[in-house]
Amino acid sequence: MSAAIDINSDLGEGFGQWTMSDDVAMLDIVTSANIACGFHAGDPSTMRKVCEAAVARGVTIGAHVSYPDLAGFGRRYIDIDPGELRDAVSYQLGALAGFAAAAGTYVCYVKPHGALYNTIVRHEVQAQAVIDGVACIADLPIVGLAGSAVLRLAAEAGLRPVTEAFVDRAYNPDGTLVPRSHHGAVLHDIDEIASRTVRMVIDGVVTAIDGQVVGISAESMCVHGDTPGAVAIAAGVRRALEAAGVDVRPFMP
Amino acid sequence: MSAAIDINSDLGEGFGQWTMSDDVAMLDIVTSANIACGFHAGDPSTMRKVCEAAVARGVTIGAHVSYPDLAGFGRRYIDIDPGELRDAVSYQLGALAGFAAAAGTYVCYVKPHGALYNTIVRHEVQAQAVIDGVACIADLPIVGLAGSAVLRLAAEAGLRPVTEAFVDRAYNPDGTLVPRSHHGAVLHDIDEIASRTVRMVIDGVVTAIDGQVVGISAESMCVHGDTPGAVAIAAGVRRALEAAGVDVRPFMP
Amino acid sequence: MSAAIDINSDLGEGFGQWTMSDDVAMLDIVTSANIACGFHAGDPSTMRKVCEAAVARGVTIGAHVSYPDLAGFGRRYIDIDPGELRDAVSYQLGALAGFAAAAGTYVCYVKPHGALYNTIVRHEVQAQAVIDGVACIADLPIVGLAGSAVLRLAAEAGLRPVTEAFVDRAYNPDGTLVPRSHHGAVLHDIDEIASRTVRMVIDGVVTAIDGQVVGISAESMCVHGDTPGAVAIAAGVRRALEAAGVDVRPFMP
Amino acid sequence: MSAAIDINSDLGEGFGQWTMSDDVAMLDIVTSANIACGFHAGDPSTMRKVCEAAVARGVTIGAHVSYPDLAGFGRRYIDIDPGELRDAVSYQLGALAGFAAAAGTYVCYVKPHGALYNTIVRHEVQAQAVIDGVACIADLPIVGLAGSAVLRLAAEAGLRPVTEAFVDRAYNPDGTLVPRSHHGAVLHDIDEIASRTVRMVIDGVVTAIDGQVVGISAESMCVHGDTPGAVAIAAGVRRALEAAGVDVRPFMP
Repeated sequence: MSAAIDINSDLGEGFGQWTMSDDVAMLDIVTSANIACGFHAGDPSTMRKVCEAAVARGVTIGAHVSYPDLAGFGRRYIDIDPGELRDAVSYQLGALAGFAAAAGTYVCYVKPHGALYNTIVRHEVQAQAVIDGVACIADLPIVGLAGSAVLRLAAEAGLRPVTEAFVDRAYNPDGTLVPRSHHGAVLHDIDEIASRTVRMVIDGVVTAIDGQVVGISAESMCVHGDTPGAVAIAAGVRRALEAAGVDVRPFMP
Repeated sequence: MSAAIDINSDLGEGFGQWTMSDDVAMLDIVTSANIACGFHAGDPSTMRKVCEAAVARGVTIGAHVSYPDLAGFGRRYIDIDPGELRDAVSYQLGALAGFAAAAGTYVCYVKPHGALYNTIVRHEVQAQAVIDGVACIADLPIVGLAGSAVLRLAAEAGLRPVTEAFVDRAYNPDGTLVPRSHHGAVLHDIDEIASRTVRMVIDGVVTAIDGQVVGISAESMCVHGDTPGAVAIAAGVRRALEAAGVDVRPFMP
Repeated sequence: MSAAIDINSDLGEGFGQWTMSDDVAMLDIVTSANIACGFHAGDPSTMRKVCEAAVARGVTIGAHVSYPDLAGFGRRYIDIDPGELRDAVSYQLGALAGFAAAAGTYVCYVKPHGALYNTIVRHEVQAQAVIDGVACIADLPIVGLAGSAVLRLAAEAGLRPVTEAFVDRAYNPDGTLVPRSHHGAVLHDIDEIASRTVRMVIDGVVTAIDGQVVGISAESMCVHGDTPGAVAIAAGVRRALEAAGVDVRPFMP
Repeated sequence: MSAAIDINSDLGEGFGQWTMSDDVAMLDIVTSANIACGFHAGDPSTMRKVCEAAVARGVTIGAHVSYPDLAGFGRRYIDIDPGELRDAVSYQLGALAGFAAAAGTYVCYVKPHGALYNTIVRHEVQAQAVIDGVACIADLPIVGLAGSAVLRLAAEAGLRPVTEAFVDRAYNPDGTLVPRSHHGAVLHDIDEIASRTVRMVIDGVVTAIDGQVVGISAESMCVHGDTPGAVAIAAGVRRALEAAGVDVRPFMP
């Protein structure tokens, strides 16, 4: 029996005249698209186009919900009232659901973005607000970091928690990510990234930054779309997974 | 057999710390609530609260879609690309649909707001864009002015056109509204407004500004929520209609 | 020799169609106007009108700078990069300076707003960012809380620190404010507020929430403009100060 | 005696994480920088950086003022109230003036952007609003199209009108621009663009799209910064002008 894995990426992160990543190229590679919903990026026309392009390629659509912070691209922690955060999440999810419906599909999961993603690894009040904002609309899976508060609270609320790993990030021996500010935190060599990803998927382990081999369990592999060489890295990862006999497919079929 | 009529009003037009109308008082009077969706007014928390308050009172929910123009309250014509207008409409409709679902109901119709409402009385390209933005998500009724391009195009697209009349606005002999800039364009006397409304509903006529009696056909009566005395006027209208034996109920049951 | 005091208030906090306080009535009472600069409130037309009305009454103009957060009215802490905060402050100060110049005057001081005001009581990095954003444009006084980091850093940077007290807020024995969430944190009785203010100005003391009399030193008294009865309270405070022989005048002549 | 000409370009048109043109490369070529002021593009930090980079290279700074329309990049006509347009212009000009002052220089001129630029070629009310928004702050030159209403009204208001020509646009025999939608409206060949520019500057003529040679008078040549090959075209234009003995220098020294 062969291994299977999902590949997800943050897409639709342009706004008006501005673009961020090569969405179409990435949609030919990934199996799940985290689509920006207008709060950190993603105007309505971009949302529609990315939904349509995703459907045309059989890529699953997820809502990439954020703090309301276009100027900061959702990368700044905001001490927002939990009720307002819950409602901001529902708003974004509803807006994307409209475009998903128009494209003939559904929003299949929610993945928080940027500073919100990082905050709700530990911030239980905001994590619960995100869960509440989703659960009041639909019982959707939540994608997050293994061991995070938001995944635990998702499970308690009856939402499926989905863990993800990062193909191009260094890991600490305890399974957490090495912060971006540290030397060696982000990997750039395609072959290294690809073989590392295959090992994570097939063997369930990764070599941490100190050389230890540590266990890692993820239902989805996150590839970046907004860095130089992003498309080449994502393509290399997918190619290596397929060459190793891994079934690359959405975690939500 | 008794006459029946719907009463609609624009609600949820606050934003953050700012408020516009007394939403709760108005929801005790109207049968259809045109809820702002965040583009001219209406933050996510206001949208949720108004949806919940509407459901609690059996008031039907409609999407009050606008040009993207918070600074101008949607009252300025924007020469927006039709594709972008279509997508702006879908986005707003989707966002409100999420809150409606969370409140246990549905968005039952769409009413364009402000400058968009006025523009698509005649502007066929923008009118079609609005229709397209709705129809790609759901076959919802469109509320507008009798004789407007948007209602004709709605019908052609298979959406139900719903005409409305304004209880406190003066009419020209041809059935169009006297522009707000003209003397006497807006009525302020509650008794006059109330009796005039009863006559429009029961007899299907209104006395125009020049004294002629002209026919008027409307499925809904629009009452304002954001003017001084708005609640008293709306209550007076409803009371008079009920006293005359009119069944005040949503046009979408 | 008589005592003298400045009275300041947050004004121009509308946005587009929305209004917050009765700016014109307040400008007849205060001597310094903290004018919103568009980031938490305050559209360009409101800024111009309030500047003109302030000049007509001899009221001094200050820039009420905020985090970029219209949706949250600047009341949410944002973990913003210090360089971006510095630039946001400069932007707001420059924008207001244009309207002040058009009205024939100058921006005479800067008072941070809301969550930013509270944060830089202790957060040295953000406090320094605010100072830098001001100092690169002009050597303006900074209004803040006695003992705050921002006033200490202002002095170190050669900007005049200006302390303010709040006429309607309860104080702890250590001279800090009782948080709004606590019972009794906000005073509502006009006579009590007025006599308390006179005592702060003439005797330099205030009775803390536990009954202790504590010293308080302030160059300006802050009155609120956005609460019910705000205008009456502010007028009562001014009347009482004048009746006690206090010279009510701007701290920046 | 040698000919002299200014070269201007629209710069600082990023927003937050998004970028538009290679500002630094362009600043090594142009003599006047039209800097976005936050209404169609240009966040505070970008404004500061571009001002500083301009000063370091002796490039003159102009305010590139726009309709308030970040989502539409200022490319959509807005039927904005003239008073609000005036105030929007003043706000943007003031904000940029702050950064110019911080960088040790001044805003030396104003050039309207996008849809506003095009609108006020003929729309006298909006043109006057722009003039009013500038004149209330400073008597700055206005850059626009030869024969436009805004330049005529600028002169009437005592502001210096500055005409510009476009190096890469085709002209009609009457001296107007061929609309972008027409075939051949935009030139792409560097050598053709460069020699054409030299001819406009030295001989004061251009070959129109129908082959006629028509007179053209401009104090500044506009080069684009946001198209593929923009930097190469701008550099080619400057090189050709210098090779022809033209003195390339700001129109405002």
